[in-house]
Amino acid sequence: MSELTTREPEVTRASLLNRTMYNLREAWREMADWREGLFAAPSPNLPEKDMEALKDQMRDCLEARGGEVSARARAANLGRIYLSLNAKGRKRFLQILAREFDIDHQAVNKAVTALQKTGDNHDERAKAERTLRQALHPPRLRLLTQLNALPEGFHFLVDLRAELLSWRKDDPALGALERDLLSLLVSWFDVGFLELRRISWESPAALLEKVIAYEAVHPIKSWDDLKNRLSSDRRCFAFFHPRMPNEPLIIVQVALVHGIADNVHILLDEAAPVLDPENADTAIFYSISNAHEGLSGISFGNFLIKRVVDELAQEFKNLKTFATLSPIPGFRHWLGGKLNEPDKDAEAELLSAAERKALATAAGTGTEPAALTSLLQTPDWPQNQELAKALKKPLMRLCARYLAKEKREGGSAFDRVAHFHLSNGARIERLNWLGNTSPQGIAQSAGLMVNYLYKLSDIEANHEAYRGEGKVMNSSAIRTLLKG
Amino acid sequence: MSELTTREPEVTRASLLNRTMYNLREAWREMADWREGLFAAPSPNLPEKDMEALKDQMRDCLEARGGEVSARARAANLGRIYLSLNAKGRKRFLQILAREFDIDHQAVNKAVTALQKTGDNHDERAKAERTLRQALHPPRLRLLTQLNALPEGFHFLVDLRAELLSWRKDDPALGALERDLLSLLVSWFDVGFLELRRISWESPAALLEKVIAYEAVHPIKSWDDLKNRLSSDRRCFAFFHPRMPNEPLIIVQVALVHGIADNVHILLDEAAPVLDPENADTAIFYSISNAHEGLSGISFGNFLIKRVVDELAQEFKNLKTFATLSPIPGFRHWLGGKLNEPDKDAEAELLSAAERKALATAAGTGTEPAALTSLLQTPDWPQNQELAKALKKPLMRLCARYLAKEKREGGSAFDRVAHFHLSNGARIERLNWLGNTSPQGIAQSAGLMVNYLYKLSDIEANHEAYRGEGKVMNSSAIRTLLKG
Amino acid sequence: MSELTTREPEVTRASLLNRTMYNLREAWREMADWREGLFAAPSPNLPEKDMEALKDQMRDCLEARGGEVSARARAANLGRIYLSLNAKGRKRFLQILAREFDIDHQAVNKAVTALQKTGDNHDERAKAERTLRQALHPPRLRLLTQLNALPEGFHFLVDLRAELLSWRKDDPALGALERDLLSLLVSWFDVGFLELRRISWESPAALLEKVIAYEAVHPIKSWDDLKNRLSSDRRCFAFFHPRMPNEPLIIVQVALVHGIADNVHILLDEAAPVLDPENADTAIFYSISNAHEGLSGISFGNFLIKRVVDELAQEFKNLKTFATLSPIPGFRHWLGGKLNEPDKDAEAELLSAAERKALATAAGTGTEPAALTSLLQTPDWPQNQELAKALKKPLMRLCARYLAKEKREGGSAFDRVAHFHLSNGARIERLNWLGNTSPQGIAQSAGLMVNYLYKLSDIEANHEAYRGEGKVMNSSAIRTLLKG
Amino acid sequence: MSELTTREPEVTRASLLNRTMYNLREAWREMADWREGLFAAPSPNLPEKDMEALKDQMRDCLEARGGEVSARARAANLGRIYLSLNAKGRKRFLQILAREFDIDHQAVNKAVTALQKTGDNHDERAKAERTLRQALHPPRLRLLTQLNALPEGFHFLVDLRAELLSWRKDDPALGALERDLLSLLVSWFDVGFLELRRISWESPAALLEKVIAYEAVHPIKSWDDLKNRLSSDRRCFAFFHPRMPNEPLIIVQVALVHGIADNVHILLDEAAPVLDPENADTAIFYSISNAHEGLSGISFGNFLIKRVVDELAQEFKNLKTFATLSPIPGFRHWLGGKLNEPDKDAEAELLSAAERKALATAAGTGTEPAALTSLLQTPDWPQNQELAKALKKPLMRLCARYLAKEKREGGSAFDRVAHFHLSNGARIERLNWLGNTSPQGIAQSAGLMVNYLYKLSDIEANHEAYRGEGKVMNSSAIRTLLKG
Repeated sequence: MSELTTREPEVTRASLLNRTMYNLREAWREMADWREGLFAAPSPNLPEKDMEALKDQMRDCLEARGGEVSARARAANLGRIYLSLNAKGRKRFLQILAREFDIDHQAVNKAVTALQKTGDNHDERAKAERTLRQALHPPRLRLLTQLNALPEGFHFLVDLRAELLSWRKDDPALGALERDLLSLLVSWFDVGFLELRRISWESPAALLEKVIAYEAVHPIKSWDDLKNRLSSDRRCFAFFHPRMPNEPLIIVQVALVHGIADNVHILLDEAAPVLDPENADTAIFYSISNAHEGLSGISFGNFLIKRVVDELAQEFKNLKTFATLSPIPGFRHWLGGKLNEPDKDAEAELLSAAERKALATAAGTGTEPAALTSLLQTPDWPQNQELAKALKKPLMRLCARYLAKEKREGGSAFDRVAHFHLSNGARIERLNWLGNTSPQGIAQSAGLMVNYLYKLSDIEANHEAYRGEGKVMNSSAIRTLLKG
Repeated sequence: MSELTTREPEVTRASLLNRTMYNLREAWREMADWREGLFAAPSPNLPEKDMEALKDQMRDCLEARGGEVSARARAANLGRIYLSLNAKGRKRFLQILAREFDIDHQAVNKAVTALQKTGDNHDERAKAERTLRQALHPPRLRLLTQLNALPEGFHFLVDLRAELLSWRKDDPALGALERDLLSLLVSWFDVGFLELRRISWESPAALLEKVIAYEAVHPIKSWDDLKNRLSSDRRCFAFFHPRMPNEPLIIVQVALVHGIADNVHILLDEAAPVLDPENADTAIFYSISNAHEGLSGISFGNFLIKRVVDELAQEFKNLKTFATLSPIPGFRHWLGGKLNEPDKDAEAELLSAAERKALATAAGTGTEPAALTSLLQTPDWPQNQELAKALKKPLMRLCARYLAKEKREGGSAFDRVAHFHLSNGARIERLNWLGNTSPQGIAQSAGLMVNYLYKLSDIEANHEAYRGEGKVMNSSAIRTLLKG
Repeated sequence: MSELTTREPEVTRASLLNRTMYNLREAWREMADWREGLFAAPSPNLPEKDMEALKDQMRDCLEARGGEVSARARAANLGRIYLSLNAKGRKRFLQILAREFDIDHQAVNKAVTALQKTGDNHDERAKAERTLRQALHPPRLRLLTQLNALPEGFHFLVDLRAELLSWRKDDPALGALERDLLSLLVSWFDVGFLELRRISWESPAALLEKVIAYEAVHPIKSWDDLKNRLSSDRRCFAFFHPRMPNEPLIIVQVALVHGIADNVHILLDEAAPVLDPENADTAIFYSISNAHEGLSGISFGNFLIKRVVDELAQEFKNLKTFATLSPIPGFRHWLGGKLNEPDKDAEAELLSAAERKALATAAGTGTEPAALTSLLQTPDWPQNQELAKALKKPLMRLCARYLAKEKREGGSAFDRVAHFHLSNGARIERLNWLGNTSPQGIAQSAGLMVNYLYKLSDIEANHEAYRGEGKVMNSSAIRTLLKG
Repeated sequence: MSELTTREPEVTRASLLNRTMYNLREAWREMADWREGLFAAPSPNLPEKDMEALKDQMRDCLEARGGEVSARARAANLGRIYLSLNAKGRKRFLQILAREFDIDHQAVNKAVTALQKTGDNHDERAKAERTLRQALHPPRLRLLTQLNALPEGFHFLVDLRAELLSWRKDDPALGALERDLLSLLVSWFDVGFLELRRISWESPAALLEKVIAYEAVHPIKSWDDLKNRLSSDRRCFAFFHPRMPNEPLIIVQVALVHGIADNVHILLDEAAPVLDPENADTAIFYSISNAHEGLSGISFGNFLIKRVVDELAQEFKNLKTFATLSPIPGFRHWLGGKLNEPDKDAEAELLSAAERKALATAAGTGTEPAALTSLLQTPDWPQNQELAKALKKPLMRLCARYLAKEKREGGSAFDRVAHFHLSNGARIERLNWLGNTSPQGIAQSAGLMVNYLYKLSDIEANHEAYRGEGKVMNSSAIRTLLKG
């Protein structure tokens, strides 16, 4: 798990859906006057015999029988039915929705034919295109829209997409439904709707509880740990949507410090003194967590960083530097792959002779070269000072190479977190040896952490260079490591 | 002007756009750090020479040069430029947007060809349809979306659509842009986003000022008039959108009374006693006004009535009846048309012999039949008791016929207000003789008003009957009038 | 009427008490479970026969029969009875309270005797003093306290004191009760409880309505006038008490301008342009109004000015000068007295020969000296340019003398408004010829207005000089006038 | 520690005063413009040499040198100095305040003489009494009042009284100062000022943290424990003062249940199911904690119970019964005293022969009587079922006797908690065997708990009977126990 990882959907979905269910039930009670004649809840796995009735109910919604107001009440009922089903029943429910209320292909063909008949007349062409566009909007999309009117309907749809994401591989129709839902959510979660709010020790416990649950980078161990992260020299912000006012969508934690922080344990140490934030010259973004799997693929992080930088610069006039202290989630995995490449002496390629010798000495294997792979699996190697010293140079260099040079197809940085910050216009500023020696930090990043620097005047140019030419901007310290 | 008429756009738009401008300028100041290198404001009528630079600026937005965050800042600049233009310049601005950032027809053709090549494979077909749908979304739509991130950006887009509506007849390209914008607004103003809020004498003066400005049915004459409409036996509600928190979208005024009200002057009389609303048995919806021309075509009224009925039923346990006291905005115009139909003796058809005789007597024209047309143009005829008495019977009958029988193509009621309430599931309950004798009331409805009754148990059936078969539901009193 | 005058109690009290009554009735409903067995409301003028029952009821309250909670409910009942009485009945009610629940003189005598018996023992003495102090607290004071627990009880007590103030001359017992109530209000309205709130066009109409009603210096003519006073280059602040959250206690209006304003008509001109407050260098306090007669004698104004200066200095970094534009409410009255002093040629003493001559010329009385008294009674003399010119010099000099030299017994400035600002540490800065030519301005101040300057660094010294030695601080301009 | 015990002042005072200090320092910064020339902070134990300067500073405050506004700023400085002192210095500070600014005895003597000279003239007498009352108000009281204007000044004074309470035994002058401060706080914390607020899981964590800290009856072990106490079938309310908006003054916890609860462990069991509160017929007040030692002697509890009963009755229409589940904090101590009374066979008097025999059997001492004293000291006797069974009857009877019959001088119930509820008009309803088997429950109440019943219709009569005649109202179950 690492910086931009969303919290595990398996863990929280159930509980959130249950919560949603509760509220939908509430909503249901309030709509009691519309209830008569509606389709009753089927058995949890939605047997064959109930399917026709369900289709009818869906059809009624779409045709707005009894008027738009009634249609919304019927949609509420569909939501309620969905929540009463088990996994098997839900999948069937969604498959009906996906298949029976798909695009009408014949209507599309007809519109295509009409389009092709239009000649040079621009207006006729425009009209035909509009008709075709209309025909390409599947009815299931309108039905999903109707659910928005429910209390908690927004949250329901977000959680629904999380479920679809986990099932889309099993059935392409569910994948298509998922993409329909995504298009809806993209429009509704446009950044223009989002509200930045500070989260503090004065926030409701019910909200703070979620901050604890959603933290994906450096898990929050207790309420005391949380309180420490909300001290006067810390800031925590999140984006919220007006229709989900109690649900943070993405959360960032910031420390106000002197100089760029190089060690996360110091930041999280509850016994450390609280600084006067008025004197801080640097803001360190040390955790960014997405809260909802159902919103994956909708980008908030770049706007969040911009907005938080603005807020902080406004509040603290002495801030000069904005940077992150970030994990390098893919480093060890990548290194492991490199070391295990068959048919060559990987270590000889990756390490210099002097480094190999130093490692052998530190490992006590005499002149026999010590395998880097196994050294890194030594339990608690960071506690072994000699070994750690011998490892530092090669690991720093290799990590710099991993971050700055390794690319995916298409040219983006191999490391997920690096890609996020580089495409936001940051540069790689500094590698921090033993910046995170927690078991997870060792396992993912060999204990290393990295600072990305957001220099406001360079952000646009950095972004363009990275996006256009895939050029990664580095500090001179990083460049030195790369040369080494 | 009548119940569902939006306030005159000519009057208010300018002022609202000016207000928006002010706020965008504010926003602009805050974004000063992004400003450098942006296109400066051209001269107000956007001369030829500035057009290329503007296109470039639009292109930069769409390509998100410098990243999405910068793109939003650029979009803000475009908004600012737009507001600095005069009418001529604005039209040119929008024409560039509409023409240069239209759908890429070649891409559409290509996607169509690809679609036609897919055979029976469902997944391939789905993929091709998705590609085609994508190709049919014009870039200008994305640019409009980017403006949402501005402070007051929402309001800007709503006002922009009002401008487009007034220009669409001049240029089909602007009509297409207007429809693109409508599709965006339909999604963003989905009823699920709207918040019902009560407006009272405790509301901010800045909001109440808008209630005065937006009232389109019975103009509010003064702050005292307004205060009277917010007394303890009145209620005023409006829908708001979270992104336009200080702008009512649609406003309804309700009086809590005994029995169904038949006269609007009594309701608006500032000297009348205030009733104890706890004892009221009837809620009269006596004014519904849309506030924004730019939202025309997006339906809120039906949901508003439903929600307000719920609120009132919750607060006042003794309420038994929910009805309107409504104008009949098209009656006199329709009647004038009937009376002027060429080549027949319209009056002889519309009136009985006895009625004509009574009118002649009242008009003092002896045995010579008095022309109904001219009688209705007699100034202050409602004050002439004899004449009024003679007019009552035929006008009531003709008005009942107008409301219940006259249809437009497609089967909807000819009267706009009637259509609105009938399609919401109400029925025509009662005609009220001299219910509104203001100059406007005389000119539009011959002084008549009508009550539409919302009987909760019949709403769905009424709606279906009206929508399906065009059947208008009437009370027995109306049916009697129709027979007479 | 002038700057620190409280609005006319006659006008508003009735309405406010009625409002209070309404709310007390509400409160009463909520306390229905405590109601049984309580004394029912007597007839409005409180006849003799009901007095005993009322006394019993008061006694029950004081003895807290049934517990403290019940006592508060009984006190609510007493409040309700009071509000149901007419003026005669209320006076009787208060006389009972004042007389029957006065200090127990015998207990006082006993405590005095005990005190005198204590010798040198400090603790015994302290104890005896405490007992005596206790005996000197009349029971009626406790009963007044109990009314505080009512909803709107605070407001009730404030209005009650206003009534007592108007009756205290008729009956010394009511005067004593009024002083008891004052001691209670002094403690409860300690400045530490008060909250400064800005009043703006975003404030509730129900509050703004009060701002209009309470304005005592420059009456607010309409909602448009009010809106102008709440423009972006104006500020309006008031103190509120947490127990009367919707009632401003004292209101100040401020204009943000360039240079010290010299004319109130310019400030109140609705057609004048709105300035950018960011550029203002001067804040002009042009109206301070106390809102409640019942709080007279409790000083808020000094703290209000200090707090508002702090707020403004915080918000607008360019403000350099804080000053008032004030009326001189007693000038004409004082001058009239001077001119009418018997047995001497007042005009000869007050005016120089040259001035008398100039006046005679302007008045067209030839060499015959024109009487200043009658000149000032000429209707519209400010419109007569020649006359106004001749009057300027002597009136400016005499007004400077009036403000700076005329004292009451005890050494305070004769002019009420001057005394207020001087004791707050301001100095007299400038006289403004024809600064207020409204009928009231002419009648009270011969059209003159004055600026008091609050120079932060001098406030303490000025205050001490004025309070200690009665020394009035003046600008050099004023000193020049005084010498003239 | 038990129901009405205030949390340990030793533990929390320091931290709270520190917090106050922080805020006062903040306030101080804001008042920087008033600072010059003020007395600087002395060394922490306030040596002799600084005392004169301190007295001068106090005198300046009282004389309002530089005006009232400056006086408040000076008072802020005194507050700051106080907070910078250690315990020794603070005591000295307060002794100066108490001794040097005491009542002026000569002025009192003079006023007494004047009073005695007045004859029968009522008005003269009244005037003299007023003068005397004035003379009896010590200047130190005015200085304490001035501290109210500080941010957090209220809190400061409350904490100051807590310190005075702990020192008053050492010095009678400090006791007198404490009583002055009490008189001020009594007026400012009049119940009319207090606001009842619900505390829920939606409340700020900073507030909930205090709920945990202040709980004095059943300590809250963790945030999970707290969350359980704020579930949907629980309610928590507190009184707040508008000048201490984030500080609960007294907190009550309520469980909504079926039937009167008899066991506190069941109520606090986090694993127990949550009930639907709509169905609950009984509200159990299971914890009432005062939060501030500095407010001891000012009674809120009776009003709190009344207000919470009103709130609950409003929200839950099915509630029929309002009762407590209370500790019996003094039972074991009283019983120990009884058993240890010298010179008699206490056990023979308190227990029947049969009971003694049963105890001997259960204790396994054969025919030898087992000492009740030592049996109760057996560790974990409640787990010994046979022994517990033998103890039940005598302990229940003795406890009933303790609660209902044991009185203090003056006739109030011996048990503190019993006295509180009885004087509020409750009756003793039921004793609950093994209702609290926590170590504290065993140590204080031999594991017993008691229900007090608040029957609304009897509250006044019960209160009167208890207050007047010292009559304790009991249920028939209790009467049976008493007879046994």
